[in-house]
Amino acid sequence: MISKKMENMVANSSAIRAMFEEGNRLAKIYGAENVFDFSLGNPNVPAPEAVKKAIIDLLDEEDPVVLHGYTNSNAGYEDVRQAVAESLNGRFGTSFSANNITMTVGAAGGLNVILKALLNPEDEVVVFAPYFGEYRSYVNNYDGVIVEISPDTATFQPKLDEFEAKITPKTKAVIVNTPNNPTGVVYSEDTIKKMASIMENKQKEYGTDIYLISDEPYRELAYDGIEVPYLTKYYANTVVGYSYSKSLSLPGERIGYLVIPDEAADSENLISAANVATRILGFVNAPTLQQKVVKACLNEKTDISFYDKNRETLYNGLKELGFECIKPEGAFYLFVKSPVADEKQFCAAAKKYNILLVPGSSFGCPGYVRMAYCVAYETIVNSLPKFKELAAEYK
Amino acid sequence: MISKKMENMVANSSAIRAMFEEGNRLAKIYGAENVFDFSLGNPNVPAPEAVKKAIIDLLDEEDPVVLHGYTNSNAGYEDVRQAVAESLNGRFGTSFSANNITMTVGAAGGLNVILKALLNPEDEVVVFAPYFGEYRSYVNNYDGVIVEISPDTATFQPKLDEFEAKITPKTKAVIVNTPNNPTGVVYSEDTIKKMASIMENKQKEYGTDIYLISDEPYRELAYDGIEVPYLTKYYANTVVGYSYSKSLSLPGERIGYLVIPDEAADSENLISAANVATRILGFVNAPTLQQKVVKACLNEKTDISFYDKNRETLYNGLKELGFECIKPEGAFYLFVKSPVADEKQFCAAAKKYNILLVPGSSFGCPGYVRMAYCVAYETIVNSLPKFKELAAEYK
Repeated sequence: MISKKMENMVANSSAIRAMFEEGNRLAKIYGAENVFDFSLGNPNVPAPEAVKKAIIDLLDEEDPVVLHGYTNSNAGYEDVRQAVAESLNGRFGTSFSANNITMTVGAAGGLNVILKALLNPEDEVVVFAPYFGEYRSYVNNYDGVIVEISPDTATFQPKLDEFEAKITPKTKAVIVNTPNNPTGVVYSEDTIKKMASIMENKQKEYGTDIYLISDEPYRELAYDGIEVPYLTKYYANTVVGYSYSKSLSLPGERIGYLVIPDEAADSENLISAANVATRILGFVNAPTLQQKVVKACLNEKTDISFYDKNRETLYNGLKELGFECIKPEGAFYLFVKSPVADEKQFCAAAKKYNILLVPGSSFGCPGYVRMAYCVAYETIVNSLPKFKELAAEYK
Repeated sequence: MISKKMENMVANSSAIRAMFEEGNRLAKIYGAENVFDFSLGNPNVPAPEAVKKAIIDLLDEEDPVVLHGYTNSNAGYEDVRQAVAESLNGRFGTSFSANNITMTVGAAGGLNVILKALLNPEDEVVVFAPYFGEYRSYVNNYDGVIVEISPDTATFQPKLDEFEAKITPKTKAVIVNTPNNPTGVVYSEDTIKKMASIMENKQKEYGTDIYLISDEPYRELAYDGIEVPYLTKYYANTVVGYSYSKSLSLPGERIGYLVIPDEAADSENLISAANVATRILGFVNAPTLQQKVVKACLNEKTDISFYDKNRETLYNGLKELGFECIKPEGAFYLFVKSPVADEKQFCAAAKKYNILLVPGSSFGCPGYVRMAYCVAYETIVNSLPKFKELAAEYK
């Protein structure tokens, strides 16, 4: 009785559910400390103490009718949007105002809003493998067509020649995610400039507008002092989707924003359409208390040294055991080459050692597995002897 | 550049926006106390004090990584869902478990989730005029077709003969909203039984399943001790969409739930599909802190005596002035007959007295206007002399 579009998705979802339940089952048998669950990207660093203080201050100081009420605009509180805009301007030299900011139910909500606003059926949306598998569902929600650029497994930077070749008159949007899930790669300024130039030329050639959607939940998770370029500065038709899920460790609270710059084509209509989409998709507005919380915590950051330590330990440990992977520059994922072509077989072998991995096929990149290292440090350390046993199977 | 589906919606949205800005403009000129804005259904009774206490207790007692983290299931925290189920069972004699509850981003989020789960393109969804205009957008999101039942303006109860005649083999769902926005009417048990019988017969006749979707944001706002029947008890294929927007005055926090009973056709798949839809529409999960808040406040209620006083004063005041309307039994709306057929003309006339009303056309029922009486009592009292002047124009 469920819709046809949902039938396959429910089947896939059951597989993920089964994996999750398998993790619980293993934890019950062997103890949670003996299960090495690298499958979930759920931050394990607590929110900064300032979040708690902000909530209590808001409860003490604000009128509850306003604090918990609908916002006047579906885009969110004007003061919050202005503060977000000014914070971006201070950091990146942009010139946004409240009008350019739509508060969203996380980045996932924001991506749905902008795709709803933009896509006509059959419009093409370009993604670079490996990519966050949910993009497929988000684009499918609005009857768009995903166009995959195959992975450059040497660097996991975008293949620009293939990108150029696959842009067509039906290309409405391009999604990038840097720092990247699942590889941890950050696109360099040089790469961004080349991508911008390709899109500008194609826009001229076809007389179209191609929107670059920058999905940035991992912006603040960059290591070794690396700079993550702010994309609106390189390409006019850029829309940014941000989330506080990782930067303030608030993933369950569903709070983020879209930036739609004045420079973007048809920006006034696009901003209106984003507000309408926020309403009619049922978000109505981003959760109000959390809007005010992020305003109070714009200068706060999650302590990423914890993730950094995990990154070093896991990367070095696996390299020493002979596994192939590139060192992530951001996010909290490691993308490891499977010792056998069928990485699902490798995942099954790992499970014998109570190690849970996600197959790269979920990210459009078979032959690899994703490890989320947002776990206790002990989990990393204790998993390495198990990985040693696992590696021995492939020698 | 925005999608074709959005173009009209953006135009309509600009009209609502213009009305809102007109209210602000009038308030600046005449003072907010001299503007009688009955246009918005934003609760003006504060959340119970217990909400604040619950938030502070949660911040003190719960691990922030869990409190603000993704929930294991997209349906929400297991303990919250179980508590909601048990609360319903205690009140209504149902037998739900956590498995039947999906926590949602308000009722608007819940309706989108269930419609995404159910609708194939061209599927028909029946609504009874006057109805909440957003249903049109929600159904349109999934390429469904709205089928309107014309209003019975004598009682604003559903026209059951027309309902029976308009059910077809393509009827996938029926949306009811009782207590009703915009009329305040509550459907009687007798009406519900007749509707259930009609749908059961049509299911047999066509060999289809017809889901009754009960949109219940106003369930707890019923006056004079009137009972609002719990619909799952009358018809097996019922899905309930609930929101704490009004019952706890938390509309901006976006917290509610869906009930999908085991008795509903294909319930196991439908529950899975609702979870997947929660994820892929970008909700991911209902805001986590608020999930825990509503668990702690299941026995709390907003003080509706305030709305009740407004209801009596406004209803009696307008009747004395010769306006025609039925007395609302629930919600916080009064649906008043326009003295002229074109109610938009009446709205324009009212605006001269700084009275803001919403045309019934927005609810599929021209010739009437909606007044939201969730306003300060003084606004009601001070508006009545203005209504007297307005009424005099039509004598």
